[in-house]
Amino acid sequence: MIQPSFDDKATPCLLLDVDRMTRNIQTLEARLGRLGVPLRPHVKTCKSIEIARRMMASNSPGITVSTLAEAEYFFGHGIEDQLYAVGIAPGKLDRIAGLYRNGLALKLTLDNSPSARRVAEAATRLNCAFPVLLEIDSDGQRGGFRPDDPGLVETAGELTDAGCRVLGVMTHMGASYDCRNAACLERAAETERRAAVTAAERLRRAGFEAPVVSVGSTPTATFARNLDGVTEVRAGTHVFMDLVMAGLGVCAITDIAISVFTEVIGFRPHAGEWLADAGWMALSRDRGTASQDIDCGYGVVCDESGRRVDDIIVRATSQEHGILARRDGKPIEPDRFVVGQRLRILPNHACATAAQHNGYWLVGEDLAEGRFWPRMHGW
Amino acid sequence: MIQPSFDDKATPCLLLDVDRMTRNIQTLEARLGRLGVPLRPHVKTCKSIEIARRMMASNSPGITVSTLAEAEYFFGHGIEDQLYAVGIAPGKLDRIAGLYRNGLALKLTLDNSPSARRVAEAATRLNCAFPVLLEIDSDGQRGGFRPDDPGLVETAGELTDAGCRVLGVMTHMGASYDCRNAACLERAAETERRAAVTAAERLRRAGFEAPVVSVGSTPTATFARNLDGVTEVRAGTHVFMDLVMAGLGVCAITDIAISVFTEVIGFRPHAGEWLADAGWMALSRDRGTASQDIDCGYGVVCDESGRRVDDIIVRATSQEHGILARRDGKPIEPDRFVVGQRLRILPNHACATAAQHNGYWLVGEDLAEGRFWPRMHGW
Repeated sequence: MIQPSFDDKATPCLLLDVDRMTRNIQTLEARLGRLGVPLRPHVKTCKSIEIARRMMASNSPGITVSTLAEAEYFFGHGIEDQLYAVGIAPGKLDRIAGLYRNGLALKLTLDNSPSARRVAEAATRLNCAFPVLLEIDSDGQRGGFRPDDPGLVETAGELTDAGCRVLGVMTHMGASYDCRNAACLERAAETERRAAVTAAERLRRAGFEAPVVSVGSTPTATFARNLDGVTEVRAGTHVFMDLVMAGLGVCAITDIAISVFTEVIGFRPHAGEWLADAGWMALSRDRGTASQDIDCGYGVVCDESGRRVDDIIVRATSQEHGILARRDGKPIEPDRFVVGQRLRILPNHACATAAQHNGYWLVGEDLAEGRFWPRMHGW
Repeated sequence: MIQPSFDDKATPCLLLDVDRMTRNIQTLEARLGRLGVPLRPHVKTCKSIEIARRMMASNSPGITVSTLAEAEYFFGHGIEDQLYAVGIAPGKLDRIAGLYRNGLALKLTLDNSPSARRVAEAATRLNCAFPVLLEIDSDGQRGGFRPDDPGLVETAGELTDAGCRVLGVMTHMGASYDCRNAACLERAAETERRAAVTAAERLRRAGFEAPVVSVGSTPTATFARNLDGVTEVRAGTHVFMDLVMAGLGVCAITDIAISVFTEVIGFRPHAGEWLADAGWMALSRDRGTASQDIDCGYGVVCDESGRRVDDIIVRATSQEHGILARRDGKPIEPDRFVVGQRLRILPNHACATAAQHNGYWLVGEDLAEGRFWPRMHGW
């Protein structure tokens, strides 16, 4: 497979505006600096060592990962403090023990007693003092112990008895994505904080040290007013931002740092629509803005330099085709584009769109255009 | 990055039931054999040379591709007759000319005069007699000349004048995916056939040879009663089938040959739901069944051996989490699964789910379990 070259303008490919990325990183860093809490960047969005290093502030304790392949890749690049923020699958414990013996004490997450028993068994069998965070449910939407669940303290006991280290608690307020205004996001951040701090205090009253209280998502990290009792914040999407974040009011559309570079391949005269060579394979199937006030289809259309073109979106996709249409349904003029013209498409969801690509072609004033940063993938 | 091993049961990963795949290939081959038309398999679904070779029947003229990276990969594996079934982006013509000089006369597709002019310019500049198919619009949904468009014959003339070879016409009835019964699919197949044959006859009356009349999609290939005048059928999804095809009546759920292997990681006692380690990264964001009569969420849950478990689906996903729920909304029993149990998830859309993975772990009686067939990706 030939690696696409930006000089040849192979389309579709993923562009990264490094200046926007740098501003996004600095904005969150400044915000958390004012609240006095370090960022443990989530690298599931970028999956790139070049970008992860830039996301780590001077006081970052380490990174957050979502797969063991990420853990191995970033450990191979020298990052030794990692939190694996997905409830542990027992079938992965032998592989994690191998990493442990090589020097990566990956912090595990779990939220139920059966998982704790499997971790405890493996800790004894493999002679690994796995460090563990207990996941807390702050929104009722996914996993986690409720802060007042009696199982929380019991599970901490089971783990400690087996020689594991119970480091504390972590939570993720996924429900923050359903907010529609700043007040809702501020409340979500406070609910997330309170759930984690309450659970940690219960563990401490029961005799566990529980030094770590880890919370976060890009929306709550951005809107938190108070992080008392929190020891670290996890966020990852902020590095690129996306249309879902813009719809939430977390960023402006002009903050979005990644886009899919595409070429116009045809016109649909009867519909007043255009065709481009970015379909769902390049944009992803993510329709995260479908439930927001402004539905952006499969992405917002910008010109080659990144400026928005009227109010044109990718209305529909097939695997390698995108259909460009005005959001208001009126026809696009037959001379609005020309076949062969290049465009940029801003994504609904940075994590999903970036995952469709092997890496990032850099654009930005401070960098030589056309450098390529690879991404890792898989499990 | 460590390659996952099926022996270690790394999850999530993609399984391929080779026996089901073989039956799916044979079923379509027999059907088209009865209609006397060869299959030009679309390899955008499998992106694997091992699978593409099995999809090619003895009378297959070649393959269909959706990206130049596919063209290069399959050409590197010796497949020299290829149709590139996406309207050509002029920016790709230099790269295609390079392939042409190396012996791959990739058949191009286009549907408008500006594209034809760009191809004609490049043909002259690069001294390449690009072979071209004119795309016909049989459903009003994407690209293509309408069969009666005067531009069809004019464009054929422009291409011929520039030294290109106008091979004929191709069309894809994407609207067949919106059908709800067999009668609708039979009509869709006939509409697709008639559009292509009508356009080819117009070209022939105008003096063009137009030997190729290429049609197809898995639904129309399956339901066509008559393919008079058609010289080849394109289909790709049939190799794996998926829940969208099952919802259309194109296959049974027990024909679906790929699944995502996952491990149970937790229980949500308040909701009566379970968590597994297959999220949208492993399943894709495709929600193709959302508009069908039976919405399968992000996939249908089967046990480790591939048998359906009650009527449980993946109701929701985040990047690496899947939430398993009964379709009827009733709670799943707390003893229905155990943490650490392995499951298989049948996908909504085979093309989208397979694209999230680096390859296929084989299962099936006739093959040694655990063999791995890689997939290519990118553009």
